[in-house]
Amino acid sequence: MDWPITELDKVPANTRHPNRTRIDPFTDNYSCGARAMVASEIRALFAMAARPEVISLAGGMPCVSALPLDVIGNMAGQLIGSRGSAALQYCTAQGDPGLREMICEVMKLEGIRARPDDVVVTVGSQQALDLIARIFIDPGDAVLVEGPSYVGALGVFTAYQAKAIHVAMDNDGLIPESLEEAIRRLAAAGRRAKFLYTVPNFHNPAGVTLSSPRRDRIVDICASAGLPVVEDNPYGLLSFAGDPGRALRANDPHGVIYLGTFSKTFAPGARIGWAVAPPAVRDKLVLAAESAVLCHSSLAQLLVREYLCGQPWQEQIKIFRELYRERRDAMLDALEGAMPGGCQWTRPGGGFYVWLKLPDGLDSKAMLSQAVSSGIAYVPGTGFFSDGSGRNYMRLSYCFPSPDRIREGVRRLAEVIETEIELRRSCGSSRTVKVT
Amino acid sequence: MDWPITELDKVPANTRHPNRTRIDPFTDNYSCGARAMVASEIRALFAMAARPEVISLAGGMPCVSALPLDVIGNMAGQLIGSRGSAALQYCTAQGDPGLREMICEVMKLEGIRARPDDVVVTVGSQQALDLIARIFIDPGDAVLVEGPSYVGALGVFTAYQAKAIHVAMDNDGLIPESLEEAIRRLAAAGRRAKFLYTVPNFHNPAGVTLSSPRRDRIVDICASAGLPVVEDNPYGLLSFAGDPGRALRANDPHGVIYLGTFSKTFAPGARIGWAVAPPAVRDKLVLAAESAVLCHSSLAQLLVREYLCGQPWQEQIKIFRELYRERRDAMLDALEGAMPGGCQWTRPGGGFYVWLKLPDGLDSKAMLSQAVSSGIAYVPGTGFFSDGSGRNYMRLSYCFPSPDRIREGVRRLAEVIETEIELRRSCGSSRTVKVT
Repeated sequence: MDWPITELDKVPANTRHPNRTRIDPFTDNYSCGARAMVASEIRALFAMAARPEVISLAGGMPCVSALPLDVIGNMAGQLIGSRGSAALQYCTAQGDPGLREMICEVMKLEGIRARPDDVVVTVGSQQALDLIARIFIDPGDAVLVEGPSYVGALGVFTAYQAKAIHVAMDNDGLIPESLEEAIRRLAAAGRRAKFLYTVPNFHNPAGVTLSSPRRDRIVDICASAGLPVVEDNPYGLLSFAGDPGRALRANDPHGVIYLGTFSKTFAPGARIGWAVAPPAVRDKLVLAAESAVLCHSSLAQLLVREYLCGQPWQEQIKIFRELYRERRDAMLDALEGAMPGGCQWTRPGGGFYVWLKLPDGLDSKAMLSQAVSSGIAYVPGTGFFSDGSGRNYMRLSYCFPSPDRIREGVRRLAEVIETEIELRRSCGSSRTVKVT
Repeated sequence: MDWPITELDKVPANTRHPNRTRIDPFTDNYSCGARAMVASEIRALFAMAARPEVISLAGGMPCVSALPLDVIGNMAGQLIGSRGSAALQYCTAQGDPGLREMICEVMKLEGIRARPDDVVVTVGSQQALDLIARIFIDPGDAVLVEGPSYVGALGVFTAYQAKAIHVAMDNDGLIPESLEEAIRRLAAAGRRAKFLYTVPNFHNPAGVTLSSPRRDRIVDICASAGLPVVEDNPYGLLSFAGDPGRALRANDPHGVIYLGTFSKTFAPGARIGWAVAPPAVRDKLVLAAESAVLCHSSLAQLLVREYLCGQPWQEQIKIFRELYRERRDAMLDALEGAMPGGCQWTRPGGGFYVWLKLPDGLDSKAMLSQAVSSGIAYVPGTGFFSDGSGRNYMRLSYCFPSPDRIREGVRRLAEVIETEIELRRSCGSSRTVKVT
């Protein structure tokens, strides 16, 4: 057959000069974003802390063995056997309509009224963060985040070459006055942030929850400043007090982009998260999702839909809550009993994490190799700041290890910290400690 | 507990001025990439062609009903029941090691020697394309692609604000002389493309295959120019002649990034694709994947691993080949019998697609609404070019409809084309035709 003659388009000049090395022939071909990529501290830890003798209080893995695996297995078998032609086929980029309907039911528990058409299914909340960054961030843009903030979100914002500006928190979550001050200082510099990213419930890593009186204020401040709020809520239904709080999105559906996930209330292995957004943002998220992955796994989506339609998922969340409450108690009791003076920590009312502050002068990052040698792992606080701060903080997770392992882990950690305090007293600085 | 005082970082001035509308309060907050997003023609078609009375030769959906659904269902049930704690948990961003081992076995069929550590599991090949764009493309960069090229790849390159420069093909695939000419003309303008993107086997949409003599030449030309080759190979194992060809990657593991997928040889609903890349590129792909989705679904990965380990997957590929060969034959026979003079089309030796050229002056895009009204859908050629060309081409898929539906579909299409030819003879241009 005849083929069209394709004309080369006119392209602007480029002054790049090849500078190839033997190690990587494509050094010169990478994007600016790729040049800025670095492995996250959590990623490096996964390998180190995987040894069985190490008790890991580092990762945020949910306790999926508490699920009725046989029941879910049967469900999956029947799904593929009877409706495999749909479950094994492509679906749309926005996601399965039946699943989106059930997601709306789930969100009602936190006061959100949404239609299935407002929802975009994503590959975990992480993909929702990536898509949001993609549609809002140009290199050099500013975004507002809590200080500390979720390491995975900071990684995405950095990958899109944004400047993450930390806003102070306290035991009641993000401080409205600090948010106002941050917006003011940006405006004084002729700038405006692209959005506020916040984890209002059982914060990762801080373990704190935004108080009710602050919720409306945060939303109002952002609305006045023309700033969308990205409300990331993986842990909201894991409240140890029982009733979940009211989502920010519940009071401002026009200004809040809400991110949810089944990774903590069902299973991360399905990788089903979602975003709920105002229509114009939703449209862009769907296009971005289509470009990024074409569509998510139908199998994973229909499995979660089946689970929500046919299984007592709210009862299962109660089981998870009780399990994590017991582990939280084990950790708080152990910390109370074992930690040396000068340590402080948060007391989470739900979720997975305790945020621990070391005595002045100690450095959680420098101390980590000694800790792992002593059979205990955690995440150093620096991972949760974009500016290198947080050295005297660490995140401790109680979600995965058994209560006994948590107690033993905290005991080991206390010993490591005590040794550091001793060494510091005699040598002057924890940074001089070298582990062989 | 005490909280750190977070300092606002100094940020450079920005001269953006808010210009908000009532329809979308965040018009001013979007990134440049988001502003450039448009819905693809294929996406709009999915809705139009979904009506049961329309025979769709548009989509590229594989025939998953040819899979042993009961067997796969049992396999999934046992997997979750016996190893649900792994299948429902997070995994690493690079993907399950056992699956990566099996992927290396699959690639041996096309002469590729790779270690599991060279492989990155992705959410379909689409995510691999997105990650490659992310690590290579800065706005304004040039990439070389075939003319026509896969619509999903063009969408990704456009999303990253690259200029896709089409290189001519013929019935033997990409033309080496045209590739050299494209590289030369870029160099003359002081530019260099970031990579060559090619679908060497049973091309989407062109249906042609890169001839053996051209394979080494293409790889050599790119190596001399310092250009990585992105070899996208979804259809390579679906050769109607039986033996698959030798992959470009087989002859140049240092210069070729190979993309594979189980969407066509197993099932798209799992969304399991992969990239094999030189180590430095692989490292960046893993970091990019982690930022994009944290990790892919363990469930989907372990299901595919189980399938490859325990099921006769090569026999199943033979079943798919026979099924698609029969449909290809039905389409080619019907085209031969029904198409008016002046139409030309490719004769694919595998894969899913026929690329059809209309008589001069006809416009497949303008003709589409009439075609859908007449109960037949296809993809207009313009979707496969970044520069608006391709109006007198269309892509016809034979993968999903039964042979009878294909024959009826081609008959309807021939009628539509004949009517257009008639109208054009009497009115002078097909663009004057309006459908109510």
